[in-house]
Formats: sequence, C-alpha cells, structure tokens
Amino acid sequence: MKQNNLAIFIFSLFLFPLSLFAEDGSRLWLRYEPLPSVQMEKYKYLIYIAKDEKSATLDIAANELSVAWEGFSGKRLSLASLQNGAVVIGTSKSKNIKALLPKEELEALKGESFLIRSVKKGGNNYTVIASAKEVGTLYGVFHFIRLVQMDEGFGHLDIKEAPKYAIRILNHWDNLDRTVERGYAGHSLWKWEELPNTLSPRYKEYARANASIGINATVLNNVNASPEILTENYLVKVKALADVFRPYGIKVYLAVNFSSPKEIGGLSDSDPLNPEVAKWWKNKVKEVYSLIPDFGGFLVKANSEGLPGPQDYGRTHADGANILADALNPYGGVVMWRAFVYSTGDEDRAKQAYLEFVPLDGQFRDNVIIQIKNGPVDFQPREPFSPLFGALNKTPEMVEFQITQEYLGFSNHLVYLAPLFKETLDSDTYSNGSGSTVAKITDGTLRPDKLTAISAVANIGEDANWCGHHFAQANWYAFGRLAWNHQLSAERIADEWIRMTFSRNNEFVDPVKSMMLTSRETVVDYMMPLGIHHVFAFGHHYGPEPWCDVPGARPDWLPKYYHKADSTGLGFNRTSTGSNAVSQYFSPLNGIYNDISRCPENLLLWFHHVPWDYKMKDGKTMWDNLCYKYDSGVRQIREYQKIWDRIEPYIDARRFGEVQSKLKIQAHDAVWWKDACLLYFQTFSKRPVPYDIERPVYELEDLKKIKLDMNHHN
Amino acid sequence: MKQNNLAIFIFSLFLFPLSLFAEDGSRLWLRYEPLPSVQMEKYKYLIYIAKDEKSATLDIAANELSVAWEGFSGKRLSLASLQNGAVVIGTSKSKNIKALLPKEELEALKGESFLIRSVKKGGNNYTVIASAKEVGTLYGVFHFIRLVQMDEGFGHLDIKEAPKYAIRILNHWDNLDRTVERGYAGHSLWKWEELPNTLSPRYKEYARANASIGINATVLNNVNASPEILTENYLVKVKALADVFRPYGIKVYLAVNFSSPKEIGGLSDSDPLNPEVAKWWKNKVKEVYSLIPDFGGFLVKANSEGLPGPQDYGRTHADGANILADALNPYGGVVMWRAFVYSTGDEDRAKQAYLEFVPLDGQFRDNVIIQIKNGPVDFQPREPFSPLFGALNKTPEMVEFQITQEYLGFSNHLVYLAPLFKETLDSDTYSNGSGSTVAKITDGTLRPDKLTAISAVANIGEDANWCGHHFAQANWYAFGRLAWNHQLSAERIADEWIRMTFSRNNEFVDPVKSMMLTSRETVVDYMMPLGIHHVFAFGHHYGPEPWCDVPGARPDWLPKYYHKADSTGLGFNRTSTGSNAVSQYFSPLNGIYNDISRCPENLLLWFHHVPWDYKMKDGKTMWDNLCYKYDSGVRQIREYQKIWDRIEPYIDARRFGEVQSKLKIQAHDAVWWKDACLLYFQTFSKRPVPYDIERPVYELEDLKKIKLDMNHHN
Repeated sequence: MKQNNLAIFIFSLFLFPLSLFAEDGSRLWLRYEPLPSVQMEKYKYLIYIAKDEKSATLDIAANELSVAWEGFSGKRLSLASLQNGAVVIGTSKSKNIKALLPKEELEALKGESFLIRSVKKGGNNYTVIASAKEVGTLYGVFHFIRLVQMDEGFGHLDIKEAPKYAIRILNHWDNLDRTVERGYAGHSLWKWEELPNTLSPRYKEYARANASIGINATVLNNVNASPEILTENYLVKVKALADVFRPYGIKVYLAVNFSSPKEIGGLSDSDPLNPEVAKWWKNKVKEVYSLIPDFGGFLVKANSEGLPGPQDYGRTHADGANILADALNPYGGVVMWRAFVYSTGDEDRAKQAYLEFVPLDGQFRDNVIIQIKNGPVDFQPREPFSPLFGALNKTPEMVEFQITQEYLGFSNHLVYLAPLFKETLDSDTYSNGSGSTVAKITDGTLRPDKLTAISAVANIGEDANWCGHHFAQANWYAFGRLAWNHQLSAERIADEWIRMTFSRNNEFVDPVKSMMLTSRETVVDYMMPLGIHHVFAFGHHYGPEPWCDVPGARPDWLPKYYHKADSTGLGFNRTSTGSNAVSQYFSPLNGIYNDISRCPENLLLWFHHVPWDYKMKDGKTMWDNLCYKYDSGVRQIREYQKIWDRIEPYIDARRFGEVQSKLKIQAHDAVWWKDACLLYFQTFSKRPVPYDIERPVYELEDLKKIKLDMNHHN
Repeated sequence: MKQNNLAIFIFSLFLFPLSLFAEDGSRLWLRYEPLPSVQMEKYKYLIYIAKDEKSATLDIAANELSVAWEGFSGKRLSLASLQNGAVVIGTSKSKNIKALLPKEELEALKGESFLIRSVKKGGNNYTVIASAKEVGTLYGVFHFIRLVQMDEGFGHLDIKEAPKYAIRILNHWDNLDRTVERGYAGHSLWKWEELPNTLSPRYKEYARANASIGINATVLNNVNASPEILTENYLVKVKALADVFRPYGIKVYLAVNFSSPKEIGGLSDSDPLNPEVAKWWKNKVKEVYSLIPDFGGFLVKANSEGLPGPQDYGRTHADGANILADALNPYGGVVMWRAFVYSTGDEDRAKQAYLEFVPLDGQFRDNVIIQIKNGPVDFQPREPFSPLFGALNKTPEMVEFQITQEYLGFSNHLVYLAPLFKETLDSDTYSNGSGSTVAKITDGTLRPDKLTAISAVANIGEDANWCGHHFAQANWYAFGRLAWNHQLSAERIADEWIRMTFSRNNEFVDPVKSMMLTSRETVVDYMMPLGIHHVFAFGHHYGPEPWCDVPGARPDWLPKYYHKADSTGLGFNRTSTGSNAVSQYFSPLNGIYNDISRCPENLLLWFHHVPWDYKMKDGKTMWDNLCYKYDSGVRQIREYQKIWDRIEPYIDARRFGEVQSKLKIQAHDAVWWKDACLLYFQTFSKRPVPYDIERPVYELEDLKKIKLDMNHHN
C-alpha cells in the first residue's frame, strides 16, 4: 500500500464509521467497515449485481451485497444484466444462472444449500451465487460477504455449503407482557401492544441478522406459554411478524400451553383423547395456517415444572404430542416436544427425562421431535450430555441449548459458548458404537430421520446491543454458525465474529480470541469446577448460594441436593452404588463414569461423592484441586481484564468501555464465587485453602446475607 | 527437651491457657504464658522475692513478678527475707539493696533509671532490681519479666536503663460524654458517670499496662476540651483516677479549654492579660493540686480549628501559655502548648505552625513545652518531619504522634507504627549541624532543656482488646518502648511484642514480624505513595476521596488543596517557585527538598508538582510509578493474608479469626484505595495504567457515591 492510500485507509477506518454510527453494538457482526484498498484490489472485477428473478428474498440479497460493498469500498454495486464483473445471484431457475452453470449441477442443488463459484466465460468474469431456494441464495450472499471480510479465496471460489440441520431455531422465552424469562438484554423485542399495525424496524434487523448466520426458524414466545398466544387477537400479531420474517427465510413457531382447549377454547378439559380436544386443535391449527401458510409448528413444555400436560389426564407424552402432530400434519407443521421433565419423587432428577421418554419410543407421530436440553439437569456451566441422546431409536431427537446466560453470569459475564455447544455435539454417546456423537445422532447421519433440528434459547432483547453484553452477541452468532455446520471449530467461529464485529487487526484478534476460547472453562473454574452443579442462588441463579435452604422448597431446587457436601466429601453419587444414573449411558461410557479412577475429572463430582482427600491425577487432593480451580478462575478473569485494557487502541471507546465495565463486574463476581464456595465447602472439608492461593476477602456469614433483588426475567 | 517434657509443655501451652482465659486480647502483652521448662531451668535459683520497704508501688512490682512466675512456671514466688534465690527489689534506700550494691553506684542512680544485676554474695545468688524511685524499680521488674520471656541474659545480668524522655505521655481524645474523637476501640475507658465512687477494674489494668512499658503520664481528655473538666464535679472524678494511677507512676494531666475562665468561671473574658483571668487560673490550679498533689499539668489546643485562645484578645500563644505556666509553676506543673495551628488564609497550611511559633521563641516560661505533631500537616501516612523541630532555640519542643489510626484505616488495618515513629525521631533536621535528629533535639541531647517529653494520641478504648485491632496493641507498646528508648529498633520492639502477645515460636514470630515491619510502607503504597497526602474522605478520613468537593468547606480541608492534580501533573509545589515551604528547613535539607532530582521520592509529591511523564530513578514515569506503588500495596496486603493464614496452627482460634477478618477488610479496602486514586488521577494523567498491573474492579463513578455513615468518633 502506498503511503497515500495508507493514510486514506487509516482516515476512513477510524473516522468515517465513527461519524456515521453510534458504536452501540446495534450493528452486530454486520458492520461492513472499510476494507484495506490493497484487499479490495482483488475484487476489481466485481462491479455489478445480475439478478433476473422477481423475489423479495433475492432483492434483500442484492441489497445486502450492495450495502456491504459500499461499506468495504465506498462504492455500491449497481444492478445490471449479465455482463463482465457481475455477481450473479439467483436460484436454479434463473436464466443467468443456467447460462453459467452446468445443468446437472443445478439439478443437484437441493433445499437451502448454496454454491459460490468464480466463473470465467467468454472472456468475462462472474461470481455466481446460487441455490435451489431463494433463501439459499441469500445465505450464499451472506457467506460471500463473510469470505470477503475474512479475505479468503476470492477469484477462485468454488464453494458448496449445505446446512447440517433442516430446522435451526431460536426459542424466545418472551412473555406476552414483554418480560423475558431468563432474559438479560432488556424487554422483549416483540411489541405486542403495537402489533399488528406498527412494525418496529428491529423486526427486520432481527430477521436479517438471523439470516446472515442461517437461522431459519423462531419460537416467538416462552415455553411457559400463555394460552392467550393462540387467541385470534395474538395470532394476527404473530402473522404480522411472520410476514416480516418470511423473505428472510424464517418460519414462525409458537410455544403452546397444553391446556389451551380448556383455557381459551371453553372445553371442559384438554384431555388429548377427548375428541372435542382433538377437534379444537385441528380447528385452531387451521386458523393459524389461514393466517400464516408457512407456519412452522408448536413447541411444547408439558407436565414440567407445574405446567399442564397429558399426564393430568392419565395420558402419556406421546398421546399429548400426537394430538398436536395430527392437527399440524396436513400443513407440514411439526411438534417439538420438550423432554425437560422431572418431578419431586425420590428419583435422581438427572435420570427422570430418560425414564419417562425411553418407554415411549416408537409411539410418536413422524412430525414429532423430542427437544432435549444438552445436559440431564439444566444448562449448568458444565454437564455431561443428556443420556437421552441416542436412547430413542424410533423418534427424532434435537438439542436445546441455552444461549441466554441463566447460569453463566447473565449479561455481565463474558463467556463464549461455542466450546460448550461443541462439547455436547462432539460427545460420543456410543449408541451406535464408537463415534456416535450427539451431532451425528441429531443431524440425521446415524438416524435418517425425516426431521432434523437444533434449537437454543435466545439471548436477544430490546437493548441497543441486542444481547446486553457485546460479547454475548458471539453466542447468538456461534449458535447460528454451528446449527449450519457443527463441524466448524469454536476458534474459527470466534475468528469470524471478532473480525466482523470489532477489528481485523491481529493485535486485537489474537488476544481477544484467546480470551473467548478459554472463557467458558474460566467461568466453570470460578463457579462450579470438577462437576459441581447447581449451587446457584435460589430463583435468580446469578450468584453462589451453596448453603441455600428455603423452607418448603422442592429439594431438587436446592443446591444441597446437588453438591451433597458433608464431612466425608463432596459430590453426587450417581454410580451403581448411588442413583445409578451412569446406567443410562451406553457402554463403555457407563463403566467409565462409574469408575472414579476413569471418570473425567471435570465431571468427577457430577458422578461421584468424592472424599476430600481423594488423590487426583495431579497428585493433589480433591479439596486442593477445588481450591486451585476456583483460584484459577479468578486469576483468569483478571488476565482478561489486562487483555481487554491492552486492546483499547484498536476499537471504539464506547464498546471498549462497556466491555471493560462488564469485566470489572465479572472479576468482582469471580472472587465472590470463589470465596462463597470455598468458605462454605471448607465448613465440611475442615482443611485449609492451600497457602499459595490468594486468601478470601469475604466472610461467609456476610455472603450468606446477600439477597439480590432480581426477578427471573426483566 | 525430653519427649515427655515436650508433651507436657505442648499440652500446657495449648490447652491450659485456653481453659483459663478468653483469648480476647484483654491481656495485651502481659499474658505470662508457660515457658519451656528447659528455659525455666536457668532460673532455678529464683525462688523468693525480697523487699524491705513499705510501698504500694513496690507491692505492685512484687506481685507482678510473682504472677508472671506463676504463668511461666506454674509456681508463685513467695516473699522472704534476703536469702539465696531471692529477687531483691527496692530503691536505693533499701537495706537489702544497700547490702548488695556499692554505695557510689546507688548514689549514681537517678530518677526512674533502674539497674538489674545478677549478684553472687556469700555463696548466694541474688537478682537485684533497684532504682532511686519506687516506680523505677517497677519498670525494672517489668523489664526483667520481658527479658525472661525473650530468654535473654539471665544469670549474668548487668543492665542499666534510663528513660530518654522525662515525660512519656498518652493523649486521650476522650470526650466527657465518653465518645472518643478519632477513637476506634469503643467508647472511653473513663466512666465519668460512675466516678468517683465506682472504679472500673480496667483503670488499674490500664495503669499496669502503661507502667509495663514506661509510660508515666496521661492526658485524660480531648484536646478539643470541654471547660467542664475543670469544674469541681469533674475534678473529684479526675482525682479518683489519679489515685488509682499513682502507684503505677502515672501522673494525670488535663486538656483545658482556654476560655474556661469565661465559660465556667463567670468572668467576662479569658484574656490572658486580664488580672482576673490570671487569678482565676491560679485559684483553679490550687484547687486541682489540693485534690491531686502530683498533678502533671495542662495540655492546650488554642486558636486551632475554631477553639478559643489568646489571639481572640489580640494576645500571642506565649501570652496564653505563660498565664497557665505561672499558675502551675509553684506546684511543678507544666504546660504542653500545641503548635497544631493553621488558619484559612492563602499561606500553605504546612508552613503556618512555623510562621506562628518561631517569632515567639524565647517568650515562653520555662515550664512551657511546645507540642508539635510529627509532620507539618496532620498525621498523614507519610509526611516529612515538621520544620518546627530545631527551629525553636529557647523553647522546649516535644513530638506528638498519633497512635490511633485516624489516617491509617482506623482499627481495621494492620499497620505497625514503630517505623513511622522512628522515621520522625531519626530525621536529621540539621538544626545544629549534621546529626541533629528530632530525637536529639527533643530528648535534651542537643538542647539541655529542663523539660523533655514525648506524647502520642492513644488508641485505647473500652473494647475487650483495648485497641480494636489486636495488632494495634503493638503501636501502644511501641510508643511506650520508644518513649523510654528511641534507639530501640522497630524490629526489636516487634519481636518483644509478638513473643509476649502471641507466641515465641519462630514459625510464628518471623513471618508475623516481617509483615509488621513492612506494614506501614504497604499502607502508604495503597493509600498515598510518593508523598501524596490528605486525599481522605471528608470528615471521617477512612476511605479515599481525592475528588472530594464539599461546597462551603475550608479549602485546606479538601483533598484537592493537597494533591493539586491537573493535566500537567500531580503534587503540591512547595519549592521556591511555589509555597516555598522548603525554606523552613535547615540547609542542606531545604536545597535537597527544593530540587526535584534530589528530593526523596517518597516525599516527591509533597514538595513538587511533578509532570505525569517525569522520569523517576527507576526510569519509569511518575504516573507509572504511582500505579506500581498502589498495586504493590494491594499485593502486599494479600501476602499478609497468606502469612496470617499460614500461622493459624500457632495461636488461639479467636485472635486468629479476628485478625483474619480484619485483614480481609484491609485487602478489600486496599483495592478500593487503589482503584479510587488511580481512576481519579487517571482523569488528569490520561495515561493507561501499566498493563501488567491488575486492573481496576470498580467504576470511579460508583466509588464517588460511597458515603460512609461514620462520625469522627465513637
């Protein structure tokens, strides 16, 4: 780059965007900042967009490309006919595309798969982005824009991408009063009170952001569903949103209350075997489809945490799911039936979903899929994968992840979740022998299910930056990218996200990426290392409360149920001498988990009640290991603070400052966690915290008095 | 030691005292714990106490020795005639003593000096403890008891000790309502409402503790004095205390309000040149001495911080002091007149005491002594010595130290003050050439004044442990020991105190001593390094408030007056281009302080307004140095926590836990200080905190909101 160009580049890079946009995080990873002219030089053949199909989706794709180009280079791309320098976008029906690609290749394109190819023909240069479906072309355009920002492969592009899952869906736990259960980014995006007449511009921005990472479905409302969502009043609002989302390829789903026939239908019950109930559902579904012809289906939380369900009438989950499935079937709709069920009996909560669902295998309709949380308890910082994965042979299974950080410091803590998502997806269940990962079970590789899907609870709210914490955006991004291709590495995804969201300067990218990649382990270390789980404060799940004892509370909602600290040791004995939850896993995992010497140490206290003096692999006792883990978490967060402060020169002051503030909270909280857990567990271990570790700064009795005024939602 | 003995020793050391005493710190350094029998073996000749004089003070001495021996060995010493194995105690008039010591040596014994000697005579072994005065013998006994505990020199003792100062006095800032200004150990010891009829047992314990370290005087009430103390009602209460203290060698002094003649005498004014006023003081003093024949004298804070004084009538401090001195003179009483004066003019507060008092030199009566705070401002964590020391040639000068930690974290922070006391005492003023230390000026070496004295504001209250923090006891102890002999090292004093107060186990002594010896520098580092001063919160002086701005407040009560932070740098220019306070020091100090390159770096910002980028001796900038100092303070406190936790096996659980809790507060506060000062000063320096330093965890704006609900006293 000549000095001149460099100066202009620096000028445009640092000043131009600052004057145009408030750096409030609202632009997510779609910022399209100027790229170095030396890089844009490679794209000198790219001048026009050629598009010969009428399509709202393709219009969006063309516009996105043009807007991106303006950001990168200062020049918009103009629409033109097929000529030298054109990006040619369309479906396999497009004449332009047919003129540039072999017929057999076009016929082979299916669904949302797309193809990006550099084509030379008649001395002309073209960049072809094509798919069988319009939305596939849109995905291709977003992929191309990403490649440009990653500075990868232009000129000789030959890319074929196909999604691993057919349905890539966000679950919004948004209530109709606009609170969001376990939401930490402000109130719900959906302004029900304004809908359907007023459409917030953010609906389109939301759809665009999802499309950019391949998310093609959304459940608008909380699984703790209000029956009201199915009233006509709300359905017209849902229709309005669906109409906005449709060109972006996003289908709308609803969470439904199983008691809706009784609650809003005026029936005497909601018994799935009551013909009136079946009829009510059929009519209701018909009404929905009359408004939203491409409606996706229902998500159901039934007979779980007090919600109604088929068991209220002595029926099974299969009976319940099937009545909805039958109603949806004529329209192609699906039922996502949640396996998150547990009751207050004597049985280990971690075993209950398996015990309820395995006997029902084979009894579900084809358009039912069982939605299973990644772990057997509840979105803990670390859990083993749920033993239900692979345990159903005749029923499709899908993962439910949680992007919103209910158990990970809300929107205060920086935790990059791709490593957590991948840990589950890459877990080998051994259901069909070695290599039977959760990913391969759920993506159709091992079970050629008609239905494949992957879901996650969204972390999106009306905050300007969408997610509360700037880095929480990375988790939305990562879920979308992994839902499209679970083989992407967490590092690759972080790399993309950082470069698009913040800076392409490696002085920024490298340290920030290292921080992100270790952040999940760090939070495990200062919250719940070695397989400890659910020692959170009652209700809000923000801080530590391992001592928590709420009179009259369900035992399985109290930390003591999980950590089982006593004078002999710590942890939940789920081996064959205990709850025998290990038996729900396939061989050889069940044996490995059952054997204290072979059980992975990061799950040790999940599966074993371990003596305080038990010698770990490093030769230190379990108690000492616990102490060092907590301490390591604290030290790591302090390192992140240093990393972040060092990168101040490379990004805008606003996002720098906002993240800096959040890291301070996190550093503070990490010490709180460490002190609370170590001081509390020490009352049982009666052993000193190793003396080379930074000492507690809190008194246990003071920590016990902390009662945060937090609701489960905001 | 045989295994058997060892076992018994360990048993007695750990269990015996625990069963007898609550380890609440009430026993101070007078605990008399069992000593190893191998050590007590050396004292096998010590069986009796021989005492042939009738004396309350000698009775106390004999009893103390016997009690100590019971603690050390389990056996009391019985009173007996002069015989083999006796500790012989008495004055130079004692027949026993005369029989054992040469006449000329006895005649040479003066005042409170004492002699301890191992004497063999007629085949008998004696240990002689003698003095010209009974109290000197008592001091000798306490010294002997200390030597036993230090395991030093028995069998060949030949010790002569004489106090460096004639008056070794505590100033209690105790109000008549039993609050204590700048007191952090509960309410006042003096239960005025019960006196004179009820005498708390703690009065005697207080006197005993003071006697054990040679303190021989006490000002019972606050220098911000209520005139009421001189009413008959209170004087009979004072007499009751004086009667308790007398056998322990402690004289009572009172702080008086200069307006007393008007306030309680019914006069129209308190003008020192008004003969009625002089007469009133004469009569009042006569009344005092009729009750307390050995009354010590008056301490006066006049024309200072709003208190009345001679300047109210256009008279000088000398006029004021002399009127009191004349009244006291017939009885041998003295006036301690405080030089702590400053007004709200334009003149640098640090200069004002000097400017007011130097012109008055030679005008004071012989029984007046000027009491000067160690530094020119006000008991800061670090100040240069007051330039008044050595500046008065014809007037005795005495130091006023502050034991109570008004500016050193109250009774929450562990700060061992001997190094601070010695820093002042060992400071060379150059008043009479090199070597003219503050100690030598005030102890009579360089000025053969009739009066020598040393004072300190007490940190004693009615808390069970006397001082609020167990380690604050060490500062009371250190003041007493240094007042007796300012040549003792801070290390020696710490060593004595630790062994007597906690444990003689070197596993305890060595780390704890290292912690104590560095603690003052540590607190300077996290509060006010490099000569920064008075950036305390308004009023209570506990936490940091460098930004403090109270509308209408005296400018010299606000931190900005002192730190003068601005975009160019930090610090108070007291050089010849500034307030020229340096000119008040003798050569060559004035030149050294005036020269930024020669000024000691630990006083740099006291004397200079220093550019942020000024290169310090280590090559780093002033700003970076400031950051590293604050960080070092935080890290040091965390090290103290580690040290303390490691020594848990060696002491009782109660004091261990109480100190542990205080260290937690201190560690917390150190981070608060660091963040508050660095984040605030950074708003001027505009420079990053060096990136290898642990990052702030607080937001400056949040810290600014902290308003502690603290009075100036409790």
